[in-house]
Amino acid sequence: MSILLSVTGFDATRWMEALLAAAPGETVVLRPASAADESIDYAVVWRQPPGVLSNLPNLRAVFSLGAGVDHILQDKTLPDVPILRIVADDLTHRMSEYVVWRVLDHHRRGMTYRAQQAARIWNERRQPAASEIEVGVLGLGELGRDAASKLGTLGFRVSGWSRRPKTVEGVECFHGEAGLDAVLSRADILVVLLPLTAETRGMIDDGFLSRLKRETPLGTPSLVNAGRGGLQKDSAILRALNDGRLMEASLDVFEREPLAPDSPLWRHPRVFVTPHAAASSDPAALAPIIMSQIAAHRRGEALGNVVDRGAGY
Amino acid sequence: MSILLSVTGFDATRWMEALLAAAPGETVVLRPASAADESIDYAVVWRQPPGVLSNLPNLRAVFSLGAGVDHILQDKTLPDVPILRIVADDLTHRMSEYVVWRVLDHHRRGMTYRAQQAARIWNERRQPAASEIEVGVLGLGELGRDAASKLGTLGFRVSGWSRRPKTVEGVECFHGEAGLDAVLSRADILVVLLPLTAETRGMIDDGFLSRLKRETPLGTPSLVNAGRGGLQKDSAILRALNDGRLMEASLDVFEREPLAPDSPLWRHPRVFVTPHAAASSDPAALAPIIMSQIAAHRRGEALGNVVDRGAGY
Repeated sequence: MSILLSVTGFDATRWMEALLAAAPGETVVLRPASAADESIDYAVVWRQPPGVLSNLPNLRAVFSLGAGVDHILQDKTLPDVPILRIVADDLTHRMSEYVVWRVLDHHRRGMTYRAQQAARIWNERRQPAASEIEVGVLGLGELGRDAASKLGTLGFRVSGWSRRPKTVEGVECFHGEAGLDAVLSRADILVVLLPLTAETRGMIDDGFLSRLKRETPLGTPSLVNAGRGGLQKDSAILRALNDGRLMEASLDVFEREPLAPDSPLWRHPRVFVTPHAAASSDPAALAPIIMSQIAAHRRGEALGNVVDRGAGY
Repeated sequence: MSILLSVTGFDATRWMEALLAAAPGETVVLRPASAADESIDYAVVWRQPPGVLSNLPNLRAVFSLGAGVDHILQDKTLPDVPILRIVADDLTHRMSEYVVWRVLDHHRRGMTYRAQQAARIWNERRQPAASEIEVGVLGLGELGRDAASKLGTLGFRVSGWSRRPKTVEGVECFHGEAGLDAVLSRADILVVLLPLTAETRGMIDDGFLSRLKRETPLGTPSLVNAGRGGLQKDSAILRALNDGRLMEASLDVFEREPLAPDSPLWRHPRVFVTPHAAASSDPAALAPIIMSQIAAHRRGEALGNVVDRGAGY
């Protein structure tokens, strides 16, 4: 039996090598050998071409190479087999590095000091301590929990929001629509780590941004989106920055990626753009996890981190 | 009896208010009432004018308003009474915010991505995980220990150096000259949190910077100095940046402050300048600590955090 590796925008060669290094006995193919290829029992994918998974009679499960699975679920020809999201310390910790970095940059006025430096201005700004600042984290899955926890370690007050009730040590947790109101109205810095689903698509819009608090110890709220571009309306974020509802934004994701050259986000002085780089899927770190899950499933063990297709994540 | 508050470059009014709010029964004065003012038993200082402490017959101890005490010790007319450094969670945690922020900015290629953003370039760079990066922390006092520990929490490998042997959980600790060699030759990112003493003055010079490793997973080493400007030779740092021994630098302190307008550090594309703002002494947080130490000492209790004048810190 063989494993299909179908990736767009990822380095297929590096992944192939990593998968084979992790499980030398396995066969990994880059495409089905024929229509109804019966030799493929597992697929490892990232933005697979539509239909490539639709006619694999012996397919038993599909593994996503990224934390999100919206890219898989939007394939309408997806067969009815378990979809697994990748859960790996390496990915989780990389995302927390990004989140803590960006929160600190907004909190410690990185953009302000860089502007002062460009003008050779020596001027110390009044600086609240982290303990005076509330960070709201939307999404308390593997990524949100770890980021929230690490922010707490640095002294921030952290509130978290998830669709269904959860508890995270050191984090004040909210859920549901009323809970979302609470987190949005309290956050001095808002971090978004939600999955992209039918429910969350386009949620960061003018209305959402108007639910943020009016004033913070740093000025007005700042936004970090490291979830999915589909969660936001780029234009709504720009409007909020320009009228002051938002002070600064760190955006790793966009409605369309790569970000169009004519998007005003590139040159906005209070926006930090990264090219969907918050948490790279490192083949060396993730391949062993995927291959050991495949081996375990072949032995008859249950799969973990199965996506709830009804919920969309 | 009264407390002398003698500060240069700090807001004396805010400090006066904070000290009186912390201990309403006390008398706080901004200068001695006369030569040989016998009413003053404690002094709270920051860059006090030379000689102001020299003729206070009943002076029992001197408190520094900042973490460092070099500013006090350079006053040659300093009487022979205990000098106390301020140790406060607020100050320690603020410094750790700064250190973690700057280390993450170098680690996650903040300068590179900002330059790409300015040119509208969408290009994801290969990103090592924190676990592949070694951060060297010079100085394992209150500040160094907390920063080292928090860096460890984020996944970095952390080595630390102090003059005398110390242990810090999760940190590989070195000491002495051989130990310094080890830390310098291993550090991908070097953080300096040493006190300024006769021994450490000017230590970050051409020779020091040539002891750093030649190559790191990010390029070449980066430097963060949040200790004292007197530790470094500004020109040596510039030379190292220009010949590649250093990749980037975050400098909060300089040989002369404010940094002279014609210093090339202002406009160097790989230097981040902050105006000695890494960890502000917040009157509201520190005044209660100082006043309670004074009250305790008046009751006959021993003082803590006494400076070793021989060592200079």
